[in-house]
Amino acid sequence: MNPTRTDVVAAAQVLRGRVHKTPVLTSATLNALLGVDLFFKCENLQRSGAFKMRGATNAVRALPEDVRLVATHSSGNHGAALALAAREAGRKAVVVLPRDAHAAKRNAVARYGAQIVPCEPTLAAREETLAAVLANTGATFVHPYDNAHIIAGAGTAALELLEQQPALDQIWVPVGGGGLAAGTVLAAGEAAQVVLAEPALARDAKDAVESGEPQLALPPKTIADGLRTALGQRNFAILRQARPPVWLASEAGIRYWTALLQAILKVVVEPSAAVTITAMAENPEATSTNAGEIPKVGVILSGGNVTAQDGRAPWPSDQG
Amino acid sequence: MNPTRTDVVAAAQVLRGRVHKTPVLTSATLNALLGVDLFFKCENLQRSGAFKMRGATNAVRALPEDVRLVATHSSGNHGAALALAAREAGRKAVVVLPRDAHAAKRNAVARYGAQIVPCEPTLAAREETLAAVLANTGATFVHPYDNAHIIAGAGTAALELLEQQPALDQIWVPVGGGGLAAGTVLAAGEAAQVVLAEPALARDAKDAVESGEPQLALPPKTIADGLRTALGQRNFAILRQARPPVWLASEAGIRYWTALLQAILKVVVEPSAAVTITAMAENPEATSTNAGEIPKVGVILSGGNVTAQDGRAPWPSDQG
Repeated sequence: MNPTRTDVVAAAQVLRGRVHKTPVLTSATLNALLGVDLFFKCENLQRSGAFKMRGATNAVRALPEDVRLVATHSSGNHGAALALAAREAGRKAVVVLPRDAHAAKRNAVARYGAQIVPCEPTLAAREETLAAVLANTGATFVHPYDNAHIIAGAGTAALELLEQQPALDQIWVPVGGGGLAAGTVLAAGEAAQVVLAEPALARDAKDAVESGEPQLALPPKTIADGLRTALGQRNFAILRQARPPVWLASEAGIRYWTALLQAILKVVVEPSAAVTITAMAENPEATSTNAGEIPKVGVILSGGNVTAQDGRAPWPSDQG
Repeated sequence: MNPTRTDVVAAAQVLRGRVHKTPVLTSATLNALLGVDLFFKCENLQRSGAFKMRGATNAVRALPEDVRLVATHSSGNHGAALALAAREAGRKAVVVLPRDAHAAKRNAVARYGAQIVPCEPTLAAREETLAAVLANTGATFVHPYDNAHIIAGAGTAALELLEQQPALDQIWVPVGGGGLAAGTVLAAGEAAQVVLAEPALARDAKDAVESGEPQLALPPKTIADGLRTALGQRNFAILRQARPPVWLASEAGIRYWTALLQAILKVVVEPSAAVTITAMAENPEATSTNAGEIPKVGVILSGGNVTAQDGRAPWPSDQG
């Protein structure tokens, strides 16, 4: 069953004291550059380095007591978040990890105590390996985005943002698999317009929402590695009903804004987290209002899992 | 006259709404690594990218109404902060800037509307050029650290931290010229022990505080470019009385922790801001307690003015 706003509110209760209440940052420089009043919800400062910790914690805490083992395939933020959430709930986790996963990523999953099962770096190998893990261990699969508890947990970021900054005209989030997008739609309700952003090279969500038809994932070419997947079924159902606007970001813009956000806001953002501000900058009409007032725009910075040394994501991830 | 705690409390009133209330971040990973409960006060997320905005704003707002022009020589965080603080107070600023200052630094000072007067990259040239500016323009010099309003303003960071996290055993700050160190000593009073950290290559503050005699600056060899200066007179007077412990950090450690803080906390820190955690890691006895309880340790992350691309300071600065 698809989650509702009630599930987001319930998730917020579950997460209390288990995840960070992340800060909201502002920048007069960025406001001047974009022509709007921006409020950055820093989920890149969330535990495990991404909003994924919210959904993973909510999903693990919702499991029956007799489920002692969870599993997923992920070379990205969901894997690390699930590992940490499981450990904190006294559960074990298995993460199927492609052999070419970045050492830093592998180390994070290992540090959080998950068992790593290596596989060849293809989607087919990942799914086959996961299926074997589930069959052999009886582990419960926690999907990275097409899961009601994951969606509700992700929505708590926007719920919290609206407590910290109630007067918002819009809340921008990146869209990949749609966990954060669908959760934010549920959380925001009528309080603010939800606006989605995705790389032009991964515009399946825009096409899906505008056509009302599910779309396949495009070839994984964008640097915003968290946004390469197509929408999950539950996620698409929620977005098809809400029909939020979806704006596109260029690759050059994503690289530029990933660096600029770090230089100005002084927080580490991964390219997937810079897609919102890129799309906003490249589509001024997206934030224009008839009222002539300066819009107040929330932006959820979804993750910060890059190394600061090179300023871009050193490993593939499936943040979506 | 030397400032007192009353001046810090008054400065906090002046700064209300003019500077960011910066967030306090925590990390279970770093707590496990250091063996203490850490509370990072993120002045790297402060306006202008450093705690310097607090002192600069407090100093500019304390000027008589007829002072319309302020000046300083700085290739670092104080110059940018003074430029921004002056602009917001409707004043003009002149910043004497060495010709080899990094373009990003020059751009920040220019973006904040200050007039830049270039000079040769020596301390003598900077002081001579500033003297000429003061003589020719009648500008008021705002010293980067040896100034009562600068010290009181810097102290508001610790005051705010103690509001956000009242139960602290220690507050660690880096020491260069001593503005932040002296201000923190005033702010903390009996509420928490203030602990200073500086690079072993710039150990003049340790020697000065322990011997009770002022020390000259050491050759500017440390990567922690904000901590190369010696203590100012007012700063030394306050520290000589309080006699806080001063711990040293190795250069290799500073580089390591600058990168690690960014990787784990997901905020951009400059090397000068990583000196505290480096000294803490390299001197475990500094945080050990007789009580056997895990100490609660505040750490003021002083600044984040590096480019995220290379993970280290691309320009010289005199943050001290």
